[in-house]
Amino acid sequence: MTITPQQVQVHLDGLAKPPGSLGRLEALAAELAVAQGTCTPLTHPRRMVLFAGDHGVVAQGVTPWPQAVTTAMVATILSGRASSTALAAAHGVDVRVVDAGMAKAPSGPFPAHFRSAPVAPGTADLAAGPAMDIAQFDAAWSLGASEAEAAVAAGFRLLIAGEMGIGNTTASACITHALTGVGADIATGSGAGADGAMRLHKRAIVEQAVARLGGARDKAALAAIAGFEIVAIAGFYAAGAAAGAVLLLDGYVTTAAALIADALAPGTARAMIAGHRSAEPGHGAALAQLGLTPILEWQMRLGEGTGALTALPLLDSASALLRDVATLDEVLGQ
Amino acid sequence: MTITPQQVQVHLDGLAKPPGSLGRLEALAAELAVAQGTCTPLTHPRRMVLFAGDHGVVAQGVTPWPQAVTTAMVATILSGRASSTALAAAHGVDVRVVDAGMAKAPSGPFPAHFRSAPVAPGTADLAAGPAMDIAQFDAAWSLGASEAEAAVAAGFRLLIAGEMGIGNTTASACITHALTGVGADIATGSGAGADGAMRLHKRAIVEQAVARLGGARDKAALAAIAGFEIVAIAGFYAAGAAAGAVLLLDGYVTTAAALIADALAPGTARAMIAGHRSAEPGHGAALAQLGLTPILEWQMRLGEGTGALTALPLLDSASALLRDVATLDEVLGQ
Repeated sequence: MTITPQQVQVHLDGLAKPPGSLGRLEALAAELAVAQGTCTPLTHPRRMVLFAGDHGVVAQGVTPWPQAVTTAMVATILSGRASSTALAAAHGVDVRVVDAGMAKAPSGPFPAHFRSAPVAPGTADLAAGPAMDIAQFDAAWSLGASEAEAAVAAGFRLLIAGEMGIGNTTASACITHALTGVGADIATGSGAGADGAMRLHKRAIVEQAVARLGGARDKAALAAIAGFEIVAIAGFYAAGAAAGAVLLLDGYVTTAAALIADALAPGTARAMIAGHRSAEPGHGAALAQLGLTPILEWQMRLGEGTGALTALPLLDSASALLRDVATLDEVLGQ
Repeated sequence: MTITPQQVQVHLDGLAKPPGSLGRLEALAAELAVAQGTCTPLTHPRRMVLFAGDHGVVAQGVTPWPQAVTTAMVATILSGRASSTALAAAHGVDVRVVDAGMAKAPSGPFPAHFRSAPVAPGTADLAAGPAMDIAQFDAAWSLGASEAEAAVAAGFRLLIAGEMGIGNTTASACITHALTGVGADIATGSGAGADGAMRLHKRAIVEQAVARLGGARDKAALAAIAGFEIVAIAGFYAAGAAAGAVLLLDGYVTTAAALIADALAPGTARAMIAGHRSAEPGHGAALAQLGLTPILEWQMRLGEGTGALTALPLLDSASALLRDVATLDEVLGQ
């Protein structure tokens, strides 16, 4: 069903409150209603699927963190004591964790919400050649799509993708540089803690990797600069939107995946809501390319879905406003 | 227990995430921890008490809404279908409604969460003389204090005050003008919908009422310009803070009450967190006077606790971060 922001505003203006008196919350309600195609949108039940993957480009020294941190953080996430899972529990979000291509999986036994489906043990170094081949891209995309389809089939109405992968802001910078036209200087941020010199080096790698594509922006080009968890998230978004779910974006990495999703499955962005704008300087350009206004601008830069999870209850408020408030006519009829 | 922002930051920096990577959420966590005096603050269970009252100054034509709207909206709130109660239900907030001095109570039967305790059927016209006498001020203060004490005794850790009262932004403008030193032009906003000419008239009334106090800012002076629901909220805040609760402020009216609370019970502001900065131009000055930074700036101007309720789950995220995330030492020890 298609619905316009104007239709939602008519509904909002008929509620028992002065028109416009809930300010930005009304704009958010309109955005949610349009994304779900109904004036009475639901944000429950909701699921986050956190995709993990490793990146060959870490060999270039683009991050201060060793690759083993991907494994350690996924173990922490599986234990439920990461920032991500703490927020998910606080807001009633079902969580799944998918190994889309880690260099080393954490040691088992694994909880039932973990899915081991690595496309390969990390991507190839995108500074030296394509990060993955087309078959790997397709496998990662299908993996993500299968998660979205299973979630919607299980009744989840709102989907969040989280990510964990040391080095993945380098891939995201390549994707943002390639797909938005913003310069490598803006697209390349500090990620999880690169200092000034490391960031300059990271930027040169981003610039060269994208230059090597020679203007191509097709699937093969995107495969050359992406990551397994990123492509899985792109497939997750495309399939989730096709199945009617609302997609709440997290930070720079998931927004890079959103750019891929909307490039290869045009229209996917219509189901998206931007949870936040992160501290990464390229994030604003990526969101603008998708036509999205972030709910929060809180200088967050952790990833793992934390920005989306922090913004999520504001959508719950928007949903409650649309679903549970009496109309002025009802009140006057009392 | 007293705790400093620095102590909280040490705790935050020891968690399994890059230092500072949760941006503003970390600052909010520090604020919550300081307000509750512990590094592991709780935001559950929480209660909102909505105080209603009427204002004699409506006779001066300071609002486009008839006084009967106070009664109609309280009836809607009691039915659970107001913006306020919809948001409270969405975020697991217990609700009570207190008639602190309405001109006309809604017709019963009343639900158990309604308390009828009117100090008088509305204040006197503050443009013509004191809005209330000292005995009425004390009665309203005690009413609010009793609600806070009962809530804390019942285990509630976080308290929200909501308000409903046609004309109460005029009283709030007087209080803000008197207690912050900000001019009547800034202190007087559009409330629930005053147009340009009505706002100029409202401003003249505010200016004259405060001028008549002749510089006095004691209880008698505040009684002359306040409202029953506003004084009840001031008592609610003072007693809530004394009993150890965190106070989450709503908009302009509750912040005016907070100014009275902190003036008559100094130190009350230490327990306060500002949910939002509203569209009322004087709200920023009132929050600054209390040393508070609002969580959201969303141009909301409905009152009824809606701004606090919208901001509340962001405090839940801050609490989850402090309570449920593993330390880096724990992760490295895995």
